[in-house]
Amino acid sequence: MSSTRPSRRGVLTGAAVLGAGGIGAGAGALASRPAAGSPAPARTVAFHGDRQAGITTPAQDSLVFAALDVTTRRVGDLADVLQRWSAAAATMTTGVPVGGPGGVGGAAEEPPQDTGEAHELPAANLTVTLGYGPSLFDERFGLADRRPAALEELPALPGEQLDPTKVGGDLCLQACADDPQVAFHAVRNLVRIGRGTVRVRWMQLGFGRTSTTSTAQSTPRNLMGFKDGTANVRAEDTADLEEFVWVGGRGAPAVDQEWMRGGTYLVARRIRMLVESWDRAPLGEQERVIGRAKESGAPLSGTGEFDALDLDRTVGGKPAIDVAAHVRLAAPETNGGVKMLRRGYSYTDGLDLATGQLDAGLFFIVFGNDPHQQFVPVQRKLGSQDALTEYLKHTGSGIFACPPGVRPGGAWGAGLFS
Amino acid sequence: MSSTRPSRRGVLTGAAVLGAGGIGAGAGALASRPAAGSPAPARTVAFHGDRQAGITTPAQDSLVFAALDVTTRRVGDLADVLQRWSAAAATMTTGVPVGGPGGVGGAAEEPPQDTGEAHELPAANLTVTLGYGPSLFDERFGLADRRPAALEELPALPGEQLDPTKVGGDLCLQACADDPQVAFHAVRNLVRIGRGTVRVRWMQLGFGRTSTTSTAQSTPRNLMGFKDGTANVRAEDTADLEEFVWVGGRGAPAVDQEWMRGGTYLVARRIRMLVESWDRAPLGEQERVIGRAKESGAPLSGTGEFDALDLDRTVGGKPAIDVAAHVRLAAPETNGGVKMLRRGYSYTDGLDLATGQLDAGLFFIVFGNDPHQQFVPVQRKLGSQDALTEYLKHTGSGIFACPPGVRPGGAWGAGLFS
Ligand code: HEM
Ligand code: HEM
Repeated sequence: MSSTRPSRRGVLTGAAVLGAGGIGAGAGALASRPAAGSPAPARTVAFHGDRQAGITTPAQDSLVFAALDVTTRRVGDLADVLQRWSAAAATMTTGVPVGGPGGVGGAAEEPPQDTGEAHELPAANLTVTLGYGPSLFDERFGLADRRPAALEELPALPGEQLDPTKVGGDLCLQACADDPQVAFHAVRNLVRIGRGTVRVRWMQLGFGRTSTTSTAQSTPRNLMGFKDGTANVRAEDTADLEEFVWVGGRGAPAVDQEWMRGGTYLVARRIRMLVESWDRAPLGEQERVIGRAKESGAPLSGTGEFDALDLDRTVGGKPAIDVAAHVRLAAPETNGGVKMLRRGYSYTDGLDLATGQLDAGLFFIVFGNDPHQQFVPVQRKLGSQDALTEYLKHTGSGIFACPPGVRPGGAWGAGLFS
Repeated sequence: MSSTRPSRRGVLTGAAVLGAGGIGAGAGALASRPAAGSPAPARTVAFHGDRQAGITTPAQDSLVFAALDVTTRRVGDLADVLQRWSAAAATMTTGVPVGGPGGVGGAAEEPPQDTGEAHELPAANLTVTLGYGPSLFDERFGLADRRPAALEELPALPGEQLDPTKVGGDLCLQACADDPQVAFHAVRNLVRIGRGTVRVRWMQLGFGRTSTTSTAQSTPRNLMGFKDGTANVRAEDTADLEEFVWVGGRGAPAVDQEWMRGGTYLVARRIRMLVESWDRAPLGEQERVIGRAKESGAPLSGTGEFDALDLDRTVGGKPAIDVAAHVRLAAPETNGGVKMLRRGYSYTDGLDLATGQLDAGLFFIVFGNDPHQQFVPVQRKLGSQDALTEYLKHTGSGIFACPPGVRPGGAWGAGLFS
């Protein structure tokens, strides 16, 4: 069986070499860079590195996201699970079963260490990214004074009708891969390793990434049919990553918890699209709502997909980009310069029995080093003014602190518990 | 952007040329066969042909299955939808939007004809397969005397705890593709075309095909970690297809409804796996339950994956393949020679809130020309004797008559309504 598999959207020899932390991320990136003249790079992303993988890694095709709760009060058990998770994730991201090459088999009297469904499948660029929720820092584990100020629960926001079964979590695991079976396998095995200590609180599958996180990627389309990710922060935008994404980066807010230096915050929002209404909206209305042309992705103030927004441009006396257009209201220009790294996925969970309509939309994931000054104010504005809001309903939500990467020999949790 | 994309599991130059009806299926297959010396075949499967595509077509990676109800009593509206569905499916399976290349755009005052999310994606071997449920032949449409005897509701079966929201349907659409976004796009657009006439009743997404339907494919693994599809009927087994799959084939039961000649029946079962218990079972127990070795897929009576089952072989006085092993009880040898064409997918729908366990398993799809003499008796036996049953729960179910293929210029429903 072939051990390489091109990613779905025509991406792209060499994309995988960006590695865990993007260009210049150090050991992780270098380790996965193939020698000149070697065959096509193996589709693996290094687990170890200064940064966690799955943030600036070129967005893979599939997502399995799990929010988990810790069910013990013994902090040692939690640290132990985090350590075993690191080892298992490091193994699985190389395409090897949990427990090593023989992990799907073993002694007849023992359950195999690995559940086996990804056996013989390529690693498919698997990344596993860990986050800590605000609730982990309550009284249970003595971590209250280690909580970064930025890791505060999200406030109530306009436009949300949260389903209480899809909110929060002590921990999150974001598994991304170019094969859904590989991503599912990773989460399932980690959940299994954590049994007795952690329990899944909610889970979301995603397909068809809705962002580019590297200039090597072409822009995908979301379930509204629009190109999504055009104006995203990318792995190559190193100055923006420093200022807006990495904790302690150049130009970023001061670090209040040293263990978070080199990490970032993840905000997840399960955003249902009212696809039936959207599909009935005329093309002109759809484009006005987004502020971009559907076919080309160009801003309505320009002609090319990557043209900068011209928010002052008028056509026939009216703004080319509507005052209520999503891109106007979300753009850094109207938000004090704030940028974010979006890394969302489309989802569909079948039929909503209450309405008989499809439950489908965007599982929005965004990374930033100051979510309460980045995601929160922008979403507060979008939720009240954005023309898109009429077609959306935020139904799930979580905020998590993603620590820096795991160095070889280290483990998740080492920084937090040390 | 590249217009070809190899299928996930290292499959396989030329697989796509099997086309709609497998080897020798006539026009459909020939139309998609590339000229000698041409570049890698475009990853498209012909929509038109003697047989519907998506049955013997090499199983693609992703499934979107929808069961629908007809909400009108005007049979002309239904025929009209089926005709528009045929045209749209023929277009989408070539990678072109509904309404033609400009279908994602159009006039500003009109909703686009296509929802756009698959725009610029390759066709990814998309197939769309239509089926009629027994309820379509009730008093509403005057079709009662056109119902084939084999299209009878499934009886109650042991081992099932059906969720009433995942059962039945007047129609079904099975969309398969090597990209979930392409499969979802197809169903979504057909549902949209049918609005006012049909409505989704239930829906299931699947990933990681659990069958091979062609010798060109390697055997995938299901979520129990076992190779699945080893002993399946394949596109190349033309005599078996005639006898067990195609209505009116050589050796098949007599045809009672001419419009079904060249069609087949689809039985769908949403089978939840109790993965947590399975994952705790020792390897030896897992292998005894299935009757095959986990790593190699070989029957416990042999050494190679494709060795025939030897049901009489004993080891140390005990049957090598346990008396309650799944393969023993499902094999043609113990079922009067009955064979079936399995074409299932893994699924996961996140967390089961009632139990806190994963809702994951196998969306089992099986094709045969006599389901009440094939699927039903085998499942009745499995549900009461199979050691695997302890780890399973059938939660969804449907039976559908899949008419023969659509000839160029023809339409779904033409045979049924003529
Ligand atoms: C289902 C919900 C959403 C949809 C369908 C959506 C769609 C889009 C589209 C089509 C674009 C233009 C292409 C691009 O630059 O990526 C865009 C841009 C953007 N969106 Fe969203 N979006 C959604 C939710 C959000 C949310 C919740 C936020 C943050 C709170 C957000 C922030 C942004 C930002 C920052 C941009 C770039 C604006 C610019 O600088 O031009 N979006 N979105
Ligand atoms: C989640 C449920 C099921 C699982 C996990 C499962 C798994 C397997 C596995 C691992 C094999 C051996 C490899 C192969 O030949 O494909 C197999 C064979 C088979 N299964 Fe299942 N199966 C399931 C349900 C069913 C059902 C409901 C039926 C039909 C009623 C069925 C019919 C068969 C048949 C006919 C074979 C081939 C037996 C032979 O000829 O050797 N299976 N299944």
